[in-house]
Amino acid sequence: MPVFNHQENKMKQIKSVVFDLYGTLYDVHSVAATCDEFFPGRGLEISKVWRQKQLEYTWLRSLMGLYVNFEQATEDAIRFACAELNLSLTSELQERMCNAYLRISPYPDTADALRALNEAEVPLAILSNGSRRSIQQVVNNSGLNWAFDQLISVEELAVFKPHPSVYSLAEQRMNLRRENILFVSSNAWDASAAKHFGFPTCWINRKNGAFDELGSTPTHTVSNLSVMAEWVLGQLHREVV
Amino acid sequence: MPVFNHQENKMKQIKSVVFDLYGTLYDVHSVAATCDEFFPGRGLEISKVWRQKQLEYTWLRSLMGLYVNFEQATEDAIRFACAELNLSLTSELQERMCNAYLRISPYPDTADALRALNEAEVPLAILSNGSRRSIQQVVNNSGLNWAFDQLISVEELAVFKPHPSVYSLAEQRMNLRRENILFVSSNAWDASAAKHFGFPTCWINRKNGAFDELGSTPTHTVSNLSVMAEWVLGQLHREVV
Repeated sequence: MPVFNHQENKMKQIKSVVFDLYGTLYDVHSVAATCDEFFPGRGLEISKVWRQKQLEYTWLRSLMGLYVNFEQATEDAIRFACAELNLSLTSELQERMCNAYLRISPYPDTADALRALNEAEVPLAILSNGSRRSIQQVVNNSGLNWAFDQLISVEELAVFKPHPSVYSLAEQRMNLRRENILFVSSNAWDASAAKHFGFPTCWINRKNGAFDELGSTPTHTVSNLSVMAEWVLGQLHREVV
Repeated sequence: MPVFNHQENKMKQIKSVVFDLYGTLYDVHSVAATCDEFFPGRGLEISKVWRQKQLEYTWLRSLMGLYVNFEQATEDAIRFACAELNLSLTSELQERMCNAYLRISPYPDTADALRALNEAEVPLAILSNGSRRSIQQVVNNSGLNWAFDQLISVEELAVFKPHPSVYSLAEQRMNLRRENILFVSSNAWDASAAKHFGFPTCWINRKNGAFDELGSTPTHTVSNLSVMAEWVLGQLHREVV
């Protein structure tokens, strides 16, 4: 029994942290400002429908076996959002709004949290639905390149989260067992799937919302990335409870 | 060229109509009345979050490879909805609310549309995410059993729409080629996937909404089931345009 526990402890040590990008490190609703320029007073409303449909299209297309990359799903979603909200969208406007998705802002607590983990020499990565180009540009445009060992896109799999193969990609690219990778997401469905996959998982619950009822619960829940970083530093070289 | 067209015409004749159930023949928001009994004034709000999450959970679980049947997804979704809306849900209340999903009301135009197609001897079926039990009970409770040759549940596949295998099941069970089955849905994502699969597809756009941007357009769009039935009767023994 003690031997078993000892092995368990070793297995669940955090040796790396892998982050979701959209909504976790970066605020997707920072595009609302751009939407607002073109459709004054409607920015956040557009951004919300846009994000919801963007997610739906990634799930639906994955299930239909008709993958398109994240930029395409994002374009499709803004066309739907504008049609649904009776807003006239020209192709020029569409391009400018979609470009805003490549310049979304990190949350105010993102840089400091990444820096604290970097200083503790915890290898960091992003695992995102975004295409390689999208992830690279978002990270470049925010000046946070220094933080990450790996930027991992679903693109090579041609399927989106929460398909298990996506989470498996993080294991392969980090060259670590799933038990040793802390997966961090503010998207409850993503955190739930990651936990099912076998990652210890930290849910960033910024809005004090309910966790999705998908048959798993996160290992740990915090309200922002600062608290997450602090918690991770306290967990290093220990078993994740 | 004329020979080719002639074959095309024969191939696209409607020989059967297969309906989606939830939101197409039956109004999912008829559960709002039951929700309202328990949470006065909040019925429709609950019903909307409940339905949205129910759909999301069917997509997410299908992608995660963690199928549960539709009743379970419905229970999971009402637990989320009440938690998200800060409403206290006892297990008794949950059971009573979920039972309301077995007694959802057909739309006012459902029975007449089915009758008109029956009289024209068009074989009809339901193809639904619901479990066999759910579909059977909804149809029984509404007294519409007489209308259908087949009630087809995704249950045997253990995956939900829009996975292509679900649409394939309708082909098998109706013993017809996809080109000869008109698929009718008011759920745009469902109609889009059915069209991709190869069914001529009629989208019931009750709310004058935008069609989902998933790379296909419905064969025909109408605002209700009466107009659909009239259109189908006009198409019989002809090519579907």
